[in-house]
Amino acid sequence: MYLLKNRILTDGKAINSEILKVDSFINHQIDSNLMKEIGKEFASHFRDKNISRVMTIESSGIAPALMTSLELNVPLVVLKKQTSKILNDDFYQTNVISFTKNTTYNLTLSKKYIKPDDHVLIIDDFLANGEAASGAAKLIEEAGAKVIGIGIVIEKSFQPGREKLDNLGFDVYSLARIKSLSEGKIEFLD
Amino acid sequence: MYLLKNRILTDGKAINSEILKVDSFINHQIDSNLMKEIGKEFASHFRDKNISRVMTIESSGIAPALMTSLELNVPLVVLKKQTSKILNDDFYQTNVISFTKNTTYNLTLSKKYIKPDDHVLIIDDFLANGEAASGAAKLIEEAGAKVIGIGIVIEKSFQPGREKLDNLGFDVYSLARIKSLSEGKIEFLD
Repeated sequence: MYLLKNRILTDGKAINSEILKVDSFINHQIDSNLMKEIGKEFASHFRDKNISRVMTIESSGIAPALMTSLELNVPLVVLKKQTSKILNDDFYQTNVISFTKNTTYNLTLSKKYIKPDDHVLIIDDFLANGEAASGAAKLIEEAGAKVIGIGIVIEKSFQPGREKLDNLGFDVYSLARIKSLSEGKIEFLD
Repeated sequence: MYLLKNRILTDGKAINSEILKVDSFINHQIDSNLMKEIGKEFASHFRDKNISRVMTIESSGIAPALMTSLELNVPLVVLKKQTSKILNDDFYQTNVISFTKNTTYNLTLSKKYIKPDDHVLIIDDFLANGEAASGAAKLIEEAGAKVIGIGIVIEKSFQPGREKLDNLGFDVYSLARIKSLSEGKIEFLD
């Protein structure tokens, strides 16, 4: 997506060879017009796939996922990061390790907001190790529903997430694929 | 806002006299079309106030705030809830007590995304004790900027937040004002 890649080159910052800072338009400050275009792009890519729900993980996936769900005219479900295990049968939960933040959390989905006939599109802002996206997919499949695709705003292609999701057989669509952040230089894969 | 109040009556649930559950369209599952209308309503109410930035608090304020910022064509800034104090000068921080969740956190705003000439509209999903909104206002005023208004999706008018924000002199606009949740019945103020 040209608009996004151009913005990453202009306003993004390679903090080191692993971390891309985009907090002026994606994370801390959000460019809502850019998010609208991102939503349109995901919606256009997955439009003929009968998506019935968009899912994301709180909190920085919410903005692109909301715009996508609006374009596709389907509900958005935000998976919660709980610190504790919920001890009742109303929720699906799975433990997720965040390598980036060096923490773990219980990704949580109410059984009320997923049905076996759902066709789900997962949207997230970053793909690094793929733990969050594969955790979300696990909960969706546990409910008997189908993961139709995974839409990623920024993929760090030099980290293992993309290969992991590909190997699990998911249709991954990333709007910007980062090949390298070495020596403060942002390089795209294509 | 008729559309919202009607939806609260249809799909909301008074769990007890203090807690209104709206997780089928506001929190866990989000109705993006309703959020768009909410954004339009806030934008229309504050349109002539020269708003330069919309601010909210992660994570359930993001959806209504994003739609508002899109309508007003200004950036959105999402204040982060940090567990730890940041020990450098790049951020404004204030400690906030969440009575609802019985926790505290450090509300955090990068100095890069607030300027003294900013006219800020704060948007949040719920107003209960007013701790989050008044914390956000404190950070904005610390930066020398102006809080032009506070837009709330659902105000629990029987809790002290509204009076607190009124007493601090803020222009508060709530789309649904809940008078009471007693005996499982949802009653509005007007």
